[in-house]
Amino acid sequence: MIRIIENPTRRSWPLLAMRNELDNESLSQTVATIIERVIKDGDEALFQLSKEIDNLESFVLQVSKDDIDASAEKISPQLKLAIDTAAGNIRRFHEAQLSTDVDIETSPGVRCLQKSIPIQRVGLYIPGGTAPLFSTVLMLAIPAQVVGCPEIVLCTPPSSSGAVASEILYAASRCGLSRVFAVGGAQAIAAMAYGTTTIPRVDKIFGPGNRYVTRAKQMVAMRQTAIDMPAGPSEVMIMADDSAEAAFVAADLLSQAEHGADSQAIVLTGSMDLALRIKDCLNEQMEHLPRRAFAAKSLSHSRIIILPEAKDMLDFANIYAPEHLIISMRNAWDVAAGLTSAGSVFIGNFSPESAGDYASGTNHTLPTTGWARAYSGVNTDSFVRKITYQELSPQGLNSLSETIITMAEAEGLDAHANAVKIRISTLKS
Amino acid sequence: MIRIIENPTRRSWPLLAMRNELDNESLSQTVATIIERVIKDGDEALFQLSKEIDNLESFVLQVSKDDIDASAEKISPQLKLAIDTAAGNIRRFHEAQLSTDVDIETSPGVRCLQKSIPIQRVGLYIPGGTAPLFSTVLMLAIPAQVVGCPEIVLCTPPSSSGAVASEILYAASRCGLSRVFAVGGAQAIAAMAYGTTTIPRVDKIFGPGNRYVTRAKQMVAMRQTAIDMPAGPSEVMIMADDSAEAAFVAADLLSQAEHGADSQAIVLTGSMDLALRIKDCLNEQMEHLPRRAFAAKSLSHSRIIILPEAKDMLDFANIYAPEHLIISMRNAWDVAAGLTSAGSVFIGNFSPESAGDYASGTNHTLPTTGWARAYSGVNTDSFVRKITYQELSPQGLNSLSETIITMAEAEGLDAHANAVKIRISTLKS
Repeated sequence: MIRIIENPTRRSWPLLAMRNELDNESLSQTVATIIERVIKDGDEALFQLSKEIDNLESFVLQVSKDDIDASAEKISPQLKLAIDTAAGNIRRFHEAQLSTDVDIETSPGVRCLQKSIPIQRVGLYIPGGTAPLFSTVLMLAIPAQVVGCPEIVLCTPPSSSGAVASEILYAASRCGLSRVFAVGGAQAIAAMAYGTTTIPRVDKIFGPGNRYVTRAKQMVAMRQTAIDMPAGPSEVMIMADDSAEAAFVAADLLSQAEHGADSQAIVLTGSMDLALRIKDCLNEQMEHLPRRAFAAKSLSHSRIIILPEAKDMLDFANIYAPEHLIISMRNAWDVAAGLTSAGSVFIGNFSPESAGDYASGTNHTLPTTGWARAYSGVNTDSFVRKITYQELSPQGLNSLSETIITMAEAEGLDAHANAVKIRISTLKS
Repeated sequence: MIRIIENPTRRSWPLLAMRNELDNESLSQTVATIIERVIKDGDEALFQLSKEIDNLESFVLQVSKDDIDASAEKISPQLKLAIDTAAGNIRRFHEAQLSTDVDIETSPGVRCLQKSIPIQRVGLYIPGGTAPLFSTVLMLAIPAQVVGCPEIVLCTPPSSSGAVASEILYAASRCGLSRVFAVGGAQAIAAMAYGTTTIPRVDKIFGPGNRYVTRAKQMVAMRQTAIDMPAGPSEVMIMADDSAEAAFVAADLLSQAEHGADSQAIVLTGSMDLALRIKDCLNEQMEHLPRRAFAAKSLSHSRIIILPEAKDMLDFANIYAPEHLIISMRNAWDVAAGLTSAGSVFIGNFSPESAGDYASGTNHTLPTTGWARAYSGVNTDSFVRKITYQELSPQGLNSLSETIITMAEAEGLDAHANAVKIRISTLKS
């Protein structure tokens, strides 16, 4: 069950902010072998690996257009409506993120521009598991579509029958995707990084996955294919004062716990009374949960940390840099204003993480394991390059020539200086 | 000398677009050992490694405030003015890049925000070499300062006397930096990633370097510290039609060639006549260059590729994805509009790469080796995280509740559904 830790010293904070470290030499070797096989044997390696690893006897690598089109008939009207509603909100929020081009004269005759150009070929990975995670299709495909990436492919492991879930196909078609491949694991990442006969090579790979997928993403990122971010187990932090509802906090903790045994939930509060009430609510709510054994295990490495000073709560949150941060406090926006590191922030008692996980419009692909200190969650910027352009008029170059020549010569780069001198000489003649 | 390749078939393009691959197992092991030593022995390892690798007998790790302040007296007024002029342009262009916050209602009662929050602790690496590359200080420190990163540290290898060049110190102080450390190589990267007694741990490391530095950046990026981008040898592509000046093109090729034997320059043109004139100009200009032996070596793996079709020139440029692209063509802006992959683009006959390297305002820290397919050059976004926030009113959550509950249950995540149900139930009672 969840532990309560009362007023820990600052010296103990780093320990309390730690996550499970995943660093496994044999994992790297296994994944490296998979990648090499895909580079060498292409599609054939994908079939063999799916057989060896997932016991898939036969399947069609590329999902047919007919199967994609038929998906809309195979899911309930209620779920279709839900996906459409969520997609609308996600689209609206991501469209609002599109950045405007920059076009200025930095000095007379020196024009500098910055434009967002969509990445040409992107690959989306949607993990398998006990249920089809179609919501992640929306979170990755909608921003790609909003910025206008011309080639979007999706890989996802098929079920044991070899089929991709209709929910995933419907969400994909809802986002205009037509190229869906029934392959998962490290081999799917390798296929998108290096290309096979069937699966095109992409420039950047997005999406969560198990540790094989994550390691494969890290490995291809060293070579030639960019990735969205390093991914780890999901996590939530809840900051709560006496305006928080213990039952809501408990429900949020459980919705984190059900993600998996390695996910982590942390409550920061000044109130031992609230901590005890949360614990009571957890016990009560867990009884009705189908996956209670699972949740109990995950809660065993979660914690409620009592920090009487509001300043300490904020400092600890910033050190931890949580993927999700729920602020159930009277002055939630003030607290949020002091926040420097988090993936996504949920304000007040009626903004549960599950709202952002599915339907409010924010992206749920977020930095975990403290990476929020340096990484953003997926957003429209994740799918573009910002290319700069410059045009100097002869006069513009002339007026900067002394500056450039002086700096180039001071750095010992004479040819850099010459490239300016030779141009300026034509103006004077 | 540079080779001319006439109208190559598309099948040969991938080969022509290749760069030198750097993948060296013993390099990884050397760098891993250096990182482990810094983690274990901190400052002491930095002193020992600087002695072993760079023959530095004694030096002070942190440059004193007095030394930084004194730097302004040690460089010429002319160079000071040049640095100040360049800094002004760089600052203006990067200030124009600052993105505006997003704050919208995606549906009634559902408010979603996205704000840029500066990365709290950033580390800048400035390589050593034959001359102090103070221009890179401006390119990294100015955007960090423009977005408001509160902690900015700089590491750079000292000269054999143990001192950091005055040019670097002046550029650093010009950008408000006060923490400069006299250490270079993989050990400097390890120090910024893990922290030592003297050098603080940072969240993200920026800056170019040799292959030890680059490999160290890639290695710490697997663990806990983000990096700006993978870095490789510098490169330029020049697209030229008959409006191009052969002498200018030759000067630009040489300014690339002088960077180092591994840097690459490629000319795309439809005109064999221009190609031959460029070659003549190269021979002529090289005679006067102090580092001509060096440049000749670099030019030996550079090429002029004759592509008679304008469409082929554009397609090849996009496949190559050059770090720098100079378009010396009559319709340069039209060509640029069709461009999908490049780091920074230089338009017309009076926009040499050296303008952007130093003073026009664009950043010169750019993706090499084809990474422009997925990465932007350094810009203000490189120094922020875009954090999302959401606040749902009770009514906002109520109207989205069916959507969230339906999706959560379809993904088998009952506790996610419960977190909504338990809140909605309080509204109905």
